[in-house]
Amino acid sequence: MENMEKNLLETIADIRGFMPGSAFNLRKNGEGVERHSTEHVKISAKTDKPGIDIRIDANTVGESIHIPVILTESGIKDVVYNDFYIGENCDVEIIAGCGIHNDGCDTSQHDGIHTFHIGKNAKIVYSEKHVGEGNGSGERILNPTTVIHMEEGSYAKMDMSQIKGVDSTMRKTEANLGPKAKLVINEKLMTHGKQKAYSDVTVNLNGEDSVVQIVSRSVGKDTSVQVFHPIAVGNNKSRAHIQCDSIIMDEAKISSIPEIAANHVDAQIVHEAAIGKINNDQLIKLQTFGLSDEEAEKVIVEGFLK
Amino acid sequence: MENMEKNLLETIADIRGFMPGSAFNLRKNGEGVERHSTEHVKISAKTDKPGIDIRIDANTVGESIHIPVILTESGIKDVVYNDFYIGENCDVEIIAGCGIHNDGCDTSQHDGIHTFHIGKNAKIVYSEKHVGEGNGSGERILNPTTVIHMEEGSYAKMDMSQIKGVDSTMRKTEANLGPKAKLVINEKLMTHGKQKAYSDVTVNLNGEDSVVQIVSRSVGKDTSVQVFHPIAVGNNKSRAHIQCDSIIMDEAKISSIPEIAANHVDAQIVHEAAIGKINNDQLIKLQTFGLSDEEAEKVIVEGFLK
Repeated sequence: MENMEKNLLETIADIRGFMPGSAFNLRKNGEGVERHSTEHVKISAKTDKPGIDIRIDANTVGESIHIPVILTESGIKDVVYNDFYIGENCDVEIIAGCGIHNDGCDTSQHDGIHTFHIGKNAKIVYSEKHVGEGNGSGERILNPTTVIHMEEGSYAKMDMSQIKGVDSTMRKTEANLGPKAKLVINEKLMTHGKQKAYSDVTVNLNGEDSVVQIVSRSVGKDTSVQVFHPIAVGNNKSRAHIQCDSIIMDEAKISSIPEIAANHVDAQIVHEAAIGKINNDQLIKLQTFGLSDEEAEKVIVEGFLK
Repeated sequence: MENMEKNLLETIADIRGFMPGSAFNLRKNGEGVERHSTEHVKISAKTDKPGIDIRIDANTVGESIHIPVILTESGIKDVVYNDFYIGENCDVEIIAGCGIHNDGCDTSQHDGIHTFHIGKNAKIVYSEKHVGEGNGSGERILNPTTVIHMEEGSYAKMDMSQIKGVDSTMRKTEANLGPKAKLVINEKLMTHGKQKAYSDVTVNLNGEDSVVQIVSRSVGKDTSVQVFHPIAVGNNKSRAHIQCDSIIMDEAKISSIPEIAANHVDAQIVHEAAIGKINNDQLIKLQTFGLSDEEAEKVIVEGFLK
């Protein structure tokens, strides 16, 4: 593996290659190039369309599954379907992520459609980092779709971030929660240049005592455009808390269109959103420590997205 | 005037008839039935369509203008255009409101389209109460449209409430704020039975240092449906605060879809929304004072919408 590829893997998945003993699937330029299963985590290629099935046995605890995707050739359009079947009582970590290194003039695009079937009382922590890099004029496009079905008493924490360098993204997330299911979504997004980012999140609280918490933080720089559209629908006794905070800089435009719907008398739904520029007092304080305008902004933005 | 009509007037406009010395226009069952101007407030019938022009001289201070509408016959569909021209430096109060008393089996409907032109540094307090009553099976429908143009330094406080008995309402409000203009909207809405209420509010913060504050409070009972869609668009250095709180009861359904858009780096926009049922501790406290379930709920709902 080239050094550039190892660096990309490190950025998106905190690894520099396959980790012995753990389940792993690396997809590169539209093809599976390395795959390892373990006793309780079986990864197999789909036969009807591009992508993999990840089947995790019931009661599997403590395993980490890495399924990174990298695109290093210019002009590739990759569509992949990954289905996760997580057995009852599991407690596992899944690390996805996609890095595009585009040095060419053609568009490189990855559309990952992830579907999670989370069994009764299972617990997952999922992280997904998206990044674009390279010196080519070709666009870097990432359109992730995430569908989450949660059975009774299951728990999912989804950390989804787009770090930088992604020219256009259309993020779609849909979750259906059973009784006592709890979903936590942390979304982090930074756009710069002429980038565009759209994020639609729909959470259906179908089961009694289901809970969702969505925290979305974003920074829009230069002339970039961001549109957030989170929807929480309380169809049963349930709780939802959505919080969207955005820092607007330069000539950026940011919209937030949350939708909360209570279809049940015991649905309790709260939403908060704020868009504003960097706090001036914070800037001045950092500047008195000797930081330049740019350095101070960098510290604040990184702290905000941490 | 019949007693029923006087009672309706009192409910919607806190008066029981014409108040001598003040500007007044009463519209009843689709026709203007009484009209009075004052030296500085001229009310005249439109010649091209139903409705009135209300012209208030610059520097007019302390006047109250009452323009109530009542529908007491079943089966009337009334559309009316009222245009307000408020001169510079005015400080006036405008009391609108519409009451429908429908004892028949046909639909009674009033669509009031109000357009405000608020001059430089002028200040208005506007209140509009909507109510439906009567024992007929005919529907009571109220579709108010309010358009507000605010010049530099102007101030408007709009108290808009729908008390009860309105079967269907489609409320549209649009405001365009000039430099240093400040708009405060207080919306209160109660629905019961099979009622439906939709409220769209769009505020364009076009001028530098313009400010809007929207507070919407609603209670949905029985099988009623409410949908709120407030939009604040910051096109300049500006501030917006939107707050929507709803109490859901019985089999009601309530949706809140606020939209905040920052198109300028110095636009500061905050939104908060919450939907939930009546606080149980409050209910229990009132019940220990000897109130029945129903009485306790009534006290809480009235306090919330006060």
